[in-house]
Amino acid sequence: MNVKNIEESPLKQRLRTIIFGTDTPEGKAFDIALLVSIVASIILICLDTIDSLHHAYGELFLIGEWMFTVIFTLEYVLRLYCSQNRFHYARSFFGIVDLLSILPSYLALIFPAANFALAIRVLRLFRVFRVLKLLRFLADGNLLLKAMLQSSRKVFMFFFSVSLIILVLSVVMYVIEGPNNGFSSIPKSMYWTIVTITTVGYGDITPQTPLGQAIAALTMLIGYSIIAIPTGILTAEISHEMVKVRDLRKCSNCGKKGHDNDAQFCNHCGSELETLDSLTRP
Amino acid sequence: MNVKNIEESPLKQRLRTIIFGTDTPEGKAFDIALLVSIVASIILICLDTIDSLHHAYGELFLIGEWMFTVIFTLEYVLRLYCSQNRFHYARSFFGIVDLLSILPSYLALIFPAANFALAIRVLRLFRVFRVLKLLRFLADGNLLLKAMLQSSRKVFMFFFSVSLIILVLSVVMYVIEGPNNGFSSIPKSMYWTIVTITTVGYGDITPQTPLGQAIAALTMLIGYSIIAIPTGILTAEISHEMVKVRDLRKCSNCGKKGHDNDAQFCNHCGSELETLDSLTRP
Amino acid sequence: MNVKNIEESPLKQRLRTIIFGTDTPEGKAFDIALLVSIVASIILICLDTIDSLHHAYGELFLIGEWMFTVIFTLEYVLRLYCSQNRFHYARSFFGIVDLLSILPSYLALIFPAANFALAIRVLRLFRVFRVLKLLRFLADGNLLLKAMLQSSRKVFMFFFSVSLIILVLSVVMYVIEGPNNGFSSIPKSMYWTIVTITTVGYGDITPQTPLGQAIAALTMLIGYSIIAIPTGILTAEISHEMVKVRDLRKCSNCGKKGHDNDAQFCNHCGSELETLDSLTRP
Amino acid sequence: MNVKNIEESPLKQRLRTIIFGTDTPEGKAFDIALLVSIVASIILICLDTIDSLHHAYGELFLIGEWMFTVIFTLEYVLRLYCSQNRFHYARSFFGIVDLLSILPSYLALIFPAANFALAIRVLRLFRVFRVLKLLRFLADGNLLLKAMLQSSRKVFMFFFSVSLIILVLSVVMYVIEGPNNGFSSIPKSMYWTIVTITTVGYGDITPQTPLGQAIAALTMLIGYSIIAIPTGILTAEISHEMVKVRDLRKCSNCGKKGHDNDAQFCNHCGSELETLDSLTRP
Repeated sequence: MNVKNIEESPLKQRLRTIIFGTDTPEGKAFDIALLVSIVASIILICLDTIDSLHHAYGELFLIGEWMFTVIFTLEYVLRLYCSQNRFHYARSFFGIVDLLSILPSYLALIFPAANFALAIRVLRLFRVFRVLKLLRFLADGNLLLKAMLQSSRKVFMFFFSVSLIILVLSVVMYVIEGPNNGFSSIPKSMYWTIVTITTVGYGDITPQTPLGQAIAALTMLIGYSIIAIPTGILTAEISHEMVKVRDLRKCSNCGKKGHDNDAQFCNHCGSELETLDSLTRP
Repeated sequence: MNVKNIEESPLKQRLRTIIFGTDTPEGKAFDIALLVSIVASIILICLDTIDSLHHAYGELFLIGEWMFTVIFTLEYVLRLYCSQNRFHYARSFFGIVDLLSILPSYLALIFPAANFALAIRVLRLFRVFRVLKLLRFLADGNLLLKAMLQSSRKVFMFFFSVSLIILVLSVVMYVIEGPNNGFSSIPKSMYWTIVTITTVGYGDITPQTPLGQAIAALTMLIGYSIIAIPTGILTAEISHEMVKVRDLRKCSNCGKKGHDNDAQFCNHCGSELETLDSLTRP
Repeated sequence: MNVKNIEESPLKQRLRTIIFGTDTPEGKAFDIALLVSIVASIILICLDTIDSLHHAYGELFLIGEWMFTVIFTLEYVLRLYCSQNRFHYARSFFGIVDLLSILPSYLALIFPAANFALAIRVLRLFRVFRVLKLLRFLADGNLLLKAMLQSSRKVFMFFFSVSLIILVLSVVMYVIEGPNNGFSSIPKSMYWTIVTITTVGYGDITPQTPLGQAIAALTMLIGYSIIAIPTGILTAEISHEMVKVRDLRKCSNCGKKGHDNDAQFCNHCGSELETLDSLTRP
Repeated sequence: MNVKNIEESPLKQRLRTIIFGTDTPEGKAFDIALLVSIVASIILICLDTIDSLHHAYGELFLIGEWMFTVIFTLEYVLRLYCSQNRFHYARSFFGIVDLLSILPSYLALIFPAANFALAIRVLRLFRVFRVLKLLRFLADGNLLLKAMLQSSRKVFMFFFSVSLIILVLSVVMYVIEGPNNGFSSIPKSMYWTIVTITTVGYGDITPQTPLGQAIAALTMLIGYSIIAIPTGILTAEISHEMVKVRDLRKCSNCGKKGHDNDAQFCNHCGSELETLDSLTRP
């Protein structure tokens, strides 16, 4: 089937502009309506898990749930219908997410097993992936992302070293404290080490022996210290990226660089500057 | 009523200088006396909530409370009386705060219901908003504020991403751990996720299953890592603002820029510099 | 008494060189011996508070304690004897600390009350102030101190804002949760707020109501976010101070600035550089 | 024995290239196979400490354990055999680690005491040191390491000050709270202070008296504030190192410096740049 050359119906073209486009007023309105629906359906699922609310308004929640499922199914079908290359959309990240966010509700109808109530709840929860659609509205974080990618090798090395420290400390604590004090296995000891080194400190497992408490204190001080390292790496990268973005804004009249992000006029000769968005947009 | 043109009494003008002004010795003395009264009344309310002190000195606290209420009422009336535009003051942020800080004490007299004691306490607590008046003395933090506003778009994106991560982790933990281990609903699971990702770690709800503990460890490592991002953003902005403030101080003799905040003389030609305050004050 | 002009005994001069001086080998040896004694006496006091060790070696600890008391008394008397201006030393910070670190042991002899054992222990604990003498060996942190002083106004404003946030959140949590859930008074509620906002999170007091848990989650996110602010302020100041220190090192041959702290030769013309210490030492 | 001059067998030379070399395909394949074996043996040891898995698959784990011991023994013998200077390897850091990672399994055979099962487990755990071999693959973190070494004096001073603060706070809390509230000795009180100042906050020991809670709140605020200091130091150093690394990359055509780490061409004249690796590799 030759997709490109056949004459498309004007309705299909218009639908595509509304659903996939973001520049026209209709496209924007559709996106915002979709956004509100997604947030509403997530709030509904969350509220339904509260026991008292489930008993009082369970039926209402079920109706709302099916209403949203129908809306999102319709949206998925329309997206499939009006996309220029259907396979491309269906296999794209958001195509799969869109499908996953409506599937669980239908699957719960097909498999009405004994533990129906629990199963349907668990399956429905995957509809939270619908929220990932929200990412579509976030094409703006490239400075932040670039800083993180630039420093990814340093950050990887940092996490590798931290993993080694966690492993060694876990084994040492397992040997010192042992199963009687809650360190029942090395994986559990690793859980404790991570709880401690990240300074979370639940207190569900705590060292009881003096030596164990000394090692625990050391673990905390290590965690407290190394928190500085990724911050340092990222800050240095962000600083560098910010200077680069500022240097992009060169006054076309006098050539001065380094203007503030919100500057509209050159602070040297007074002529108007290009907006930052026109420079950083890909 | 033509407010601007009618002849004002000298008393009213003098009162306005004392109450609203901050430049004359009387104005300063009034502000400091007011500040001390606000802090004293807050300490009094706080101490009154301690049971043992309430039993021993309850009467004294009540007298003190009414003394401060009378003082602040008088202050509010005087402010209303001597302001050039009364509606403008009454509807301003501090006008409303001033009113809210005295209202509860009077309301407690009008509604002496059965649970009088508790009601009056709760109502009186809103007098803490009086503390917000203190903000009036804080017109100095513009560098810090500007750095935060400059980075607000990046910080918003950061919090949006964190919210998505919290939501997904909450649902996953609710499915894995379930109501039996304290994750009784998705909102409660979100409470746990926030407690964990911010590295607070109360330990009132902790994962019990091995898989739940693994996801919890992941949550902690995420929280530990992303704490670096807002720090990096803000540091880069503050650095940039500081450099800009330093560049504002240009020696009027030789033109050298970039002097320290506390420098009084140009370190190049020795001539006296303008003070920083005269440059950054709006 | 004319201190400056009378002839001093050579012994006194020599003693002064050893005790107060740090440049001669004897002065250094004395300082290190003193340092070791201080650390040893502190370890001894700490170990004595462990019950099992106190029962086993209590007598030994008492002997050691008195040995150190005699040593430090001798040191204090010698310092008094050989200082050029005795009143100046006795009233200086370290003069008072030196006296406070030996006084408790003697006081315990004079007041042998019924609760002698506890009293002597508590009094002896103040000997930990002896450790402050160690600060004498720390005349090196001026860059760090300068960065902190430079940013002290910003840091003060930060702590003032945080205090207001803590106060408002404490009152709100006290009203919402109330005495039944552990928030028995506003000061206790402030303790909880500080435990939460600093991400310590003991879990001895935790919110029980859904609304309280929501406010708690907000408190945590506030604490998690504002941790970035002092870091940002301090980092920017330290960066600036480091650049300034580097700029201090100017090659005397070609005039190039900005050499590394550990650089020994100019990386532009190869001539030897002055050491950093000779530049930053006051 | 004259090691250098005797004719080496070609097999020995080839083995050395494979085992110690990392440039040839065989050398790389050997390193990766070794890496996988190390990780697999560590996972095996960790899983064996989980009770349910030990009961079900204990025999299997024992077989796997001995398989890995034989493999690593073989590797150790081969390394000894083909190294040019055997004593040098055997006494090197990795030579000792290699030996320590296989010894415990054999020692458990020689000393089959009564508590055989526990002893062998504890001894085997030291095989985790095998993981340190992984460090061999990490010759890349020199920028990070250099930043840390540059700031080591400042960081040492920071940790020294923190230690003094911890010691003073521990003594004060021990005096205020006393053994009845869990602060049973000064070392235990120090454990509590470190748990609090690092914002871990287990909650196994918490202050009960109002004064103790006030000091605890102060401790938390101190910990919350000083976390900014090492971050600031390290960030400033990393920033400086990054600028230096960028300045290393000078275009050989037009002389422009300060290119990005991932830049391949000069952004001024377009000629190709040397790679960063060729500049920073020692």
